[in-house]
Amino acid sequence: MLFSNITILNENLEIEKNKYVKVSGDRITYIGDVKPEDGYSREYDGRGKLLMSGFFNGHGHSPMSLMRGYGENMALQDWLFKKIFPFEDQLDSSAVYWGTMLAMAESLRYGIVSTSDMYYFCDDMARAVIESGAKANISRSITNPMGSPLSELASLNEMKEFYEGFHNAAGGRIKVDMSLHAEYTSNPETAMALADYARSLDDTIMHIHVSETKSEHEECIARHGLTPAAYLEKMGLFDVPAIAAHCVYSDDDDLEIFKSRGVTVATNPVSNMKLASGICNVQKIIDMGINLAIGTDSVASNNSLDFMEEMKVMTIGCKAHTGDPTAVTPKDALRAATFGGAKAQGRAESGSVKEGNKADLIVIDISQPNMHPVHNLINNMVYSCSGKDVVLTMVDGKVLYDNGEYTTIDIEKTIFEAQRSTEKILERL
Amino acid sequence: MLFSNITILNENLEIEKNKYVKVSGDRITYIGDVKPEDGYSREYDGRGKLLMSGFFNGHGHSPMSLMRGYGENMALQDWLFKKIFPFEDQLDSSAVYWGTMLAMAESLRYGIVSTSDMYYFCDDMARAVIESGAKANISRSITNPMGSPLSELASLNEMKEFYEGFHNAAGGRIKVDMSLHAEYTSNPETAMALADYARSLDDTIMHIHVSETKSEHEECIARHGLTPAAYLEKMGLFDVPAIAAHCVYSDDDDLEIFKSRGVTVATNPVSNMKLASGICNVQKIIDMGINLAIGTDSVASNNSLDFMEEMKVMTIGCKAHTGDPTAVTPKDALRAATFGGAKAQGRAESGSVKEGNKADLIVIDISQPNMHPVHNLINNMVYSCSGKDVVLTMVDGKVLYDNGEYTTIDIEKTIFEAQRSTEKILERL
Repeated sequence: MLFSNITILNENLEIEKNKYVKVSGDRITYIGDVKPEDGYSREYDGRGKLLMSGFFNGHGHSPMSLMRGYGENMALQDWLFKKIFPFEDQLDSSAVYWGTMLAMAESLRYGIVSTSDMYYFCDDMARAVIESGAKANISRSITNPMGSPLSELASLNEMKEFYEGFHNAAGGRIKVDMSLHAEYTSNPETAMALADYARSLDDTIMHIHVSETKSEHEECIARHGLTPAAYLEKMGLFDVPAIAAHCVYSDDDDLEIFKSRGVTVATNPVSNMKLASGICNVQKIIDMGINLAIGTDSVASNNSLDFMEEMKVMTIGCKAHTGDPTAVTPKDALRAATFGGAKAQGRAESGSVKEGNKADLIVIDISQPNMHPVHNLINNMVYSCSGKDVVLTMVDGKVLYDNGEYTTIDIEKTIFEAQRSTEKILERL
Repeated sequence: MLFSNITILNENLEIEKNKYVKVSGDRITYIGDVKPEDGYSREYDGRGKLLMSGFFNGHGHSPMSLMRGYGENMALQDWLFKKIFPFEDQLDSSAVYWGTMLAMAESLRYGIVSTSDMYYFCDDMARAVIESGAKANISRSITNPMGSPLSELASLNEMKEFYEGFHNAAGGRIKVDMSLHAEYTSNPETAMALADYARSLDDTIMHIHVSETKSEHEECIARHGLTPAAYLEKMGLFDVPAIAAHCVYSDDDDLEIFKSRGVTVATNPVSNMKLASGICNVQKIIDMGINLAIGTDSVASNNSLDFMEEMKVMTIGCKAHTGDPTAVTPKDALRAATFGGAKAQGRAESGSVKEGNKADLIVIDISQPNMHPVHNLINNMVYSCSGKDVVLTMVDGKVLYDNGEYTTIDIEKTIFEAQRSTEKILERL
């Protein structure tokens, strides 16, 4: 495939105009000013369009798309105990499959090519992701709220089986990460056992909820005399590459831990604001040189997978929080949304429009009124662009979404089955 | 025109399915379960669609669309004095016309049917709004930073001429409001002269920036021993119906003034966050029964006119600010975006899907993945809908935007001329 006369956001996050970009197999094989003579079966007219890396979602729970708009405007504990947990208790393999497929459809519509996805029924999640053509780092979230003996934790074995069965499946589109759900939903024995297992693997990533709420952060200190970050480091969970999701209340010492251990912070600006958890000072994270990724969290607390919105809310939220209008530039947001997320997922060959990289790309319509005039296209990309200005999404060189059409997902069936799965669960409640 | 088999958001902000809604002339003439036999030339297939009131933008500066993305990530004073004011000094009649037309195109795309629009070159603004088919309450913003004698203030005469020439023009689509820019950009004599003039008119609305930033609020107290709201009331500016824009730092006594004087608060959540001004506690405003409208402010500080985004950011911003996830419900947001804004603009026959009302309506595509499953469509409307899910915008019964096409605006010419006007100004700087 050849993108002709297209504007690109290059690997240095600069705008270049009137470029030709060729994709062969799953790679970007040419970027230049001269039109290649042949070697492509489709030529895409790039006038009025921008080509950039797809978005890498640093923290999600795809199957929870079934809970979109379910139980809104409730206090956190009521929402969890009266709505979310009872619904989750009724989930089954089919519901998780269709919830994940719906999330993949929405993700591809909004330009998300890969998601760090933490949940359970992971085989069903992987099946949906593989069929959709998207990528995901899927982790079986380990909880052990009662501190049960490890021998009684089926989830640990599930996780190991899932790793053995699916890690690097579908040509590497699926990666299996490890996940301790959080400090407050487990105990030290569980944390250390998981760290042991992760260290025994050549190649995995640890994905954990960290300091999402003030009470979680403070109760950890009361329990262990350590912040969540310090506790998790002590348990050995940062001995492998890791994603710390949220980090709204992480303090300066915590950030030093992330920095020294190479932990990525995945911030979830919309979800954190909507659940009234707070606002993460991402400027500080950027200033310290910590890798930053952006997550949507689940649709149950977002309630969409609109990554343009996520970038904008991250920047304006941090400006409001710090009182500093210069905080978090559009480039910072674009870097986190693409390269930062890809790096966090161990996908070093993705996240940039660069020759030799994987062709995980999106096309944005920049011809519309909301994108004009153009003083600076980078500013418009983050502050003025609509999520629905994404008009094409490509993963590993395959077009998965193109101007209203999905090539791999039966969208009518997906919406129908997701709705039906939801209704069946509600009937049982 | 007949909307058939359509879901509606009715005047009580409840969802009703499979309705028929007939528009004759500029009015909604029928809402019911039975299909009318005749009296329409176009039948609109409403399956998978929702019909609701258009959005009423409570605070904007349309011509500033020319400054989209111009001078970002700067401290407020630098941004104003190095970028915005020098650019504004170069504006002319043609630039204002095309900037306004661009804003109208974007507004209609995002479902905004009417804007409370404060700026200057008001004749050119009115000309663009009239041609676009949209509605606006336009006010000539009065400033008098040096405290010049009133006889030297050309803006006061301009404003009077504009009122006489344009109030209720285009069948009432144009209304002329009064505007004192703000306390900090004028002096008491100017404020009182404007209040005198406003009281002399049968029918006008006062539109003022109030307590947008902490320093503005505090400096007013230092100058006058009164908050901006108390000062403006004392000057007589709330003797006519009024819109107080921003009110981020308005205190409890200020809110009592708004309540007792029937002043509308127009909150501008995206702009306030992006400029790091702060977050307005709109829940308190709602609790006190003050009329609430939502504004976009200008595209120079937003940087879009996406009203779905504005509603979502208002709700989640207030939840984060108050620490209360139950703050500001989706219904609160929908009410402010429609009925609250229409009421603020003195457009009592708009803002609801109701028989006899003006047909200022929008259609939303609710068939897409981001709107499923449906536990509660009202929740999805505010938290999950994309601005670009608006597929039709109608003002006074005329379709102005329909599935990618404008019926009144030459969109290519508008974008071209807006860009050219911008470049001509930049050349002169």
